[in-house]
Amino acid sequence: MWAQRAIRLDPRPRGYHLVTGEVLEAVPQIAEVGIGILHLSLRHTSASLTLNENASPDVRRDFAAYFDEAVPESAPYWTHTLEGADDMPAHIKASLLGPSLSIPIAQGRLPLGTWQGVYLCEHRNAGGPRSLLATVWGEPRMS
Amino acid sequence: MWAQRAIRLDPRPRGYHLVTGEVLEAVPQIAEVGIGILHLSLRHTSASLTLNENASPDVRRDFAAYFDEAVPESAPYWTHTLEGADDMPAHIKASLLGPSLSIPIAQGRLPLGTWQGVYLCEHRNAGGPRSLLATVWGEPRMS
Amino acid sequence: MWAQRAIRLDPRPRGYHLVTGEVLEAVPQIAEVGIGILHLSLRHTSASLTLNENASPDVRRDFAAYFDEAVPESAPYWTHTLEGADDMPAHIKASLLGPSLSIPIAQGRLPLGTWQGVYLCEHRNAGGPRSLLATVWGEPRMS
Repeated sequence: MWAQRAIRLDPRPRGYHLVTGEVLEAVPQIAEVGIGILHLSLRHTSASLTLNENASPDVRRDFAAYFDEAVPESAPYWTHTLEGADDMPAHIKASLLGPSLSIPIAQGRLPLGTWQGVYLCEHRNAGGPRSLLATVWGEPRMS
Repeated sequence: MWAQRAIRLDPRPRGYHLVTGEVLEAVPQIAEVGIGILHLSLRHTSASLTLNENASPDVRRDFAAYFDEAVPESAPYWTHTLEGADDMPAHIKASLLGPSLSIPIAQGRLPLGTWQGVYLCEHRNAGGPRSLLATVWGEPRMS
Repeated sequence: MWAQRAIRLDPRPRGYHLVTGEVLEAVPQIAEVGIGILHLSLRHTSASLTLNENASPDVRRDFAAYFDEAVPESAPYWTHTLEGADDMPAHIKASLLGPSLSIPIAQGRLPLGTWQGVYLCEHRNAGGPRSLLATVWGEPRMS
């Protein structure tokens, strides 16, 4: 079975945001799959998806601190600066963390680790709404 | 439906190269898929695939500048130096950016964002031709 | 056809470890697939999976040296430090290298490049056993 669903994520401030619940609600077909995959794909080049620690907000703040240091806005080598100082670092972070996730489905749910959650990584100061495409495929669940 | 196709990418200079058109031409089966996935996999450990901005060549030049700074050839900790100063940084960049991409298919086409293109990231000075394996699967498109 | 299998990886020291053989042994169903995908997913936020050079142990040592330098334990911006100095860098490395891999299957085997092997990247000093979920899907192989 196959299902595909466009998800609109409301604008969020620059930073790392847990969106696991919001994404799962948008794809109820996961419950019908015995073995399968949920694929999430961002249609942007200045935001990313990743899996990481879903409990402590400290971790998400430290993600922001780390990536701002590792990909500095003030680096002398940027030439693509027309769209603002946050633009080129956002492109780099987008590719470092990646635009998509593939998460297994087992018996109608995502068997994520206890501490794993889906992060929307918003790398722009004013990225606006973000468009996500969720695709689900798999073997139907035996009832 | 399933299809698989080996693609040979001609040698390119070290840097970040848009290959969206070349890849899509090699996998016309995408047009026959209603909902599905295009998976692209590089068979190398010193080159990567990523999605990023497809318009401005500045962005691709800044990718090169950033990654050369972030993974310096002259770092004192490299011990695997037999194959040249560009080799070990190429291995690191290959894993930072990743060897594969999974891109959704919707109604016979890739619903990429307006600005998303497929980059071949060539991390070696003389990487030679690169071998890519494209795999397509999905639900046949209703006509 | 679909198959899914949980794999327990024994505790390993912090570092980069080749696990290709161990993973393949756990999923013999690969041999029955003509065209398909092997998906590997770690259920942790402080370890990663990547593909890289499978021959020289130097490369794996240089991975450790690079990532310890690029994501330093002593950085002044870490606030999530309760679980030890290696914890927050482990979360960052986990997302930089990613929690999963999708590898094509062709005629009953993985057509990896000559030098490609699966790395378990253990970012914690004492990460313990690691839980991996392998999912295989594809078109049955013609005999």
